[in-house]
Amino acid sequence: MERIMVNELENHINKKVEIKGWVYRVRKLKNITFIILRDRTGLVQCVVENSCMDISGVKLESVVSIIGEVKESNNALNFFEILIEKFQVINGSIGELPIEINKDELEINLDTMLNNRVLSLRHAKVNSIFKIQNIIVRGFRQLLINEGFTEIFTPKIVAEGTEGGTDMFQVKYFENIAYLAQSPQFYKQMMVGAGFERVFEVAHVYRAEQHNTTRHLNEYISMDLEMGFIKDEEDIMEMEERLLKFILNKVEEEGKIYLETLNADMPKIEDKIPKIKFSEALKILEKEYNKTDLDGDLDPEGEKLICRYAKEKLGCDFIFLTHYPRRKRPMYTMPYGEEETRSFDLLFRGVEITTGGQRIHDYNMLIKNIEYKGLVPENYENYTSLFKHGMPIHGGLAIGLERITAQLLSLENVRESSLFPRDRTRLVP
Amino acid sequence: MERIMVNELENHINKKVEIKGWVYRVRKLKNITFIILRDRTGLVQCVVENSCMDISGVKLESVVSIIGEVKESNNALNFFEILIEKFQVINGSIGELPIEINKDELEINLDTMLNNRVLSLRHAKVNSIFKIQNIIVRGFRQLLINEGFTEIFTPKIVAEGTEGGTDMFQVKYFENIAYLAQSPQFYKQMMVGAGFERVFEVAHVYRAEQHNTTRHLNEYISMDLEMGFIKDEEDIMEMEERLLKFILNKVEEEGKIYLETLNADMPKIEDKIPKIKFSEALKILEKEYNKTDLDGDLDPEGEKLICRYAKEKLGCDFIFLTHYPRRKRPMYTMPYGEEETRSFDLLFRGVEITTGGQRIHDYNMLIKNIEYKGLVPENYENYTSLFKHGMPIHGGLAIGLERITAQLLSLENVRESSLFPRDRTRLVP
Repeated sequence: MERIMVNELENHINKKVEIKGWVYRVRKLKNITFIILRDRTGLVQCVVENSCMDISGVKLESVVSIIGEVKESNNALNFFEILIEKFQVINGSIGELPIEINKDELEINLDTMLNNRVLSLRHAKVNSIFKIQNIIVRGFRQLLINEGFTEIFTPKIVAEGTEGGTDMFQVKYFENIAYLAQSPQFYKQMMVGAGFERVFEVAHVYRAEQHNTTRHLNEYISMDLEMGFIKDEEDIMEMEERLLKFILNKVEEEGKIYLETLNADMPKIEDKIPKIKFSEALKILEKEYNKTDLDGDLDPEGEKLICRYAKEKLGCDFIFLTHYPRRKRPMYTMPYGEEETRSFDLLFRGVEITTGGQRIHDYNMLIKNIEYKGLVPENYENYTSLFKHGMPIHGGLAIGLERITAQLLSLENVRESSLFPRDRTRLVP
Repeated sequence: MERIMVNELENHINKKVEIKGWVYRVRKLKNITFIILRDRTGLVQCVVENSCMDISGVKLESVVSIIGEVKESNNALNFFEILIEKFQVINGSIGELPIEINKDELEINLDTMLNNRVLSLRHAKVNSIFKIQNIIVRGFRQLLINEGFTEIFTPKIVAEGTEGGTDMFQVKYFENIAYLAQSPQFYKQMMVGAGFERVFEVAHVYRAEQHNTTRHLNEYISMDLEMGFIKDEEDIMEMEERLLKFILNKVEEEGKIYLETLNADMPKIEDKIPKIKFSEALKILEKEYNKTDLDGDLDPEGEKLICRYAKEKLGCDFIFLTHYPRRKRPMYTMPYGEEETRSFDLLFRGVEITTGGQRIHDYNMLIKNIEYKGLVPENYENYTSLFKHGMPIHGGLAIGLERITAQLLSLENVRESSLFPRDRTRLVP
């Protein structure tokens, strides 16, 4: 017999089917036993008379096959159930389950959830996070491919960092020392210059940051894009706006069931995402929230407050902060006047989810800016040589996949939106 | 004015347009000068009278903007050309070009090509390789999504290897030693067990192999899939067959222009990919090709010969070798009898592009097999604990993206199908 998935059973009423999956719940009454089976598409109630067979001893989360007839019935899950004729354990569960996963809420702390990742991922509320994450990634790729972008795969083992080796993980590369890439920045710029003009990459990036916060991962997925022949950084922000609208629509259309499971509150971008200059944001924080401890920088509380301002005063869950100070931005960032740059952050519900902007395309300006940042141009020759032979005006951005997922679903910790997070202390599972 | 792409110009005959791109060729005659401009969509001839302006001094590969009228004309590239009215250098090329890229063939050796990657990628024959690679990846994802697979992102920094730490790159992870993942094997199995049932990942993997061959990269892209609730390894081979047919069709449909540029000879899978047992293949090599130096293993020459056999005797560019010996396969491989396994390789035009098979799903069998391989089960507890709580019968495979691209396009060296390859000695660009 061919296996039927749970979400197809409604087309098999009064027919005999085989289903396979995990034993989610067992309940033995005086005369009958109920088993709820879970496969990747849902849950279904199965029932058998105890006089026919006693299956109540099957362990929760065992993998089983059930053959039986689909009959109309009134139960909490469906308008049908399965009358069990044959019941077979394919791979039985051994010993005690370390966590309980057959309740509506998974009542365990984050560490326990991550230590028992395979089991916790079986819970609908956890599973749904990654189904939504999938739609986000697919939306990102789909819009960009429609707009003439080419997907690229660039090396993660690199000889040098974009910022001179700080916060990078060292790799022993045969007799050399190499590093894990903090971002595909240099490579995506190279690919613009290599004539592809518009490129994107969805891949792992690495930050050897010492701090353990609810917003940081040491390994995460960066959704990067870079595009040539732009006017300036406004084109990049416009692209991100279009991208976010497309992704949010796709999540609403294809992720309905998962959004409901998670009780997620979807943001809307009615028209434009508001933009405020970085320097202006600092003034607003001082004036509106009496926040005077910033010293020219935005701390996590500042990010939260400026998002509150965007929501309450400007009616949007997103806000672009533009014209970041030159001293805070890497050497490849296009300056704007003496003190500022053509770069921006996008904040969403209190957290930065994107950094982007226009890059320097002129060779001499780049060399000067590397020196301005106190770095040595000779160390970057593999990169700077690119700018000698026809680099278009260009810019780009990166969206942290786990962060946008976490903010969209109002998760408390970004680790919840990473399947197997790596942080300051966690290397397993 | 809005930029028009070269491949859209035919819709703008007798209209004034702006185009932007790179100066591919310049030819100054007595009265007129021709410039061929290249953008990401193609080449177009532009012309101006020398009495109007002298633009012949522009350096090759400079980024320029040209405004002018699209006029019908008879030239080697198109049935139209552009009469230049305004010519502006956006970012001029500086100094000598290190390689010549405006000829039909890029006549440089591999090292020079890779050392000047940004320039060599501008050549149509090099560019086309990665356009085809893109179609392969999209085909892989598209078919699997249609078949109910979920895309996953799993960690590349891992605490332990699938084979006990051989051939792995070491990472300094704060106060610990970690490794770069050789494959997502353990994680994709975990995700099957986590209730996703069918998962795939397209991501970087790492092999710290000492040898420098035309077939090996130390960092490459692995297209992995893993699926639960299978009958046995036959289901996995059938999935790969379906996948390859789908990908090849897609490449032919969407990659026509790139295939022509590369003069590529597309393989056909008429019906089924032939299957031969590994042990049988050794006998064929001895009998047909008098190859007696194999000692129970397949060397590169043996792989070439068995592919020649498949092509000449069985009429297929692909061949599955099945039932690999147990001593040659990792501990998670499902045994078949005492000596063999339910695992296979797929060879394509002389090179292995896939390893796959059924995995062990039974906890006790797995522990015994880990011991059989001379490894210590306690070292794998994060992995083996998975098998205690309901692991379905499952299997999977991995396709090397650069390898399948290289074999499909008959490239001599797998480095040609990696944008920025990493090998025994190459860490830049």
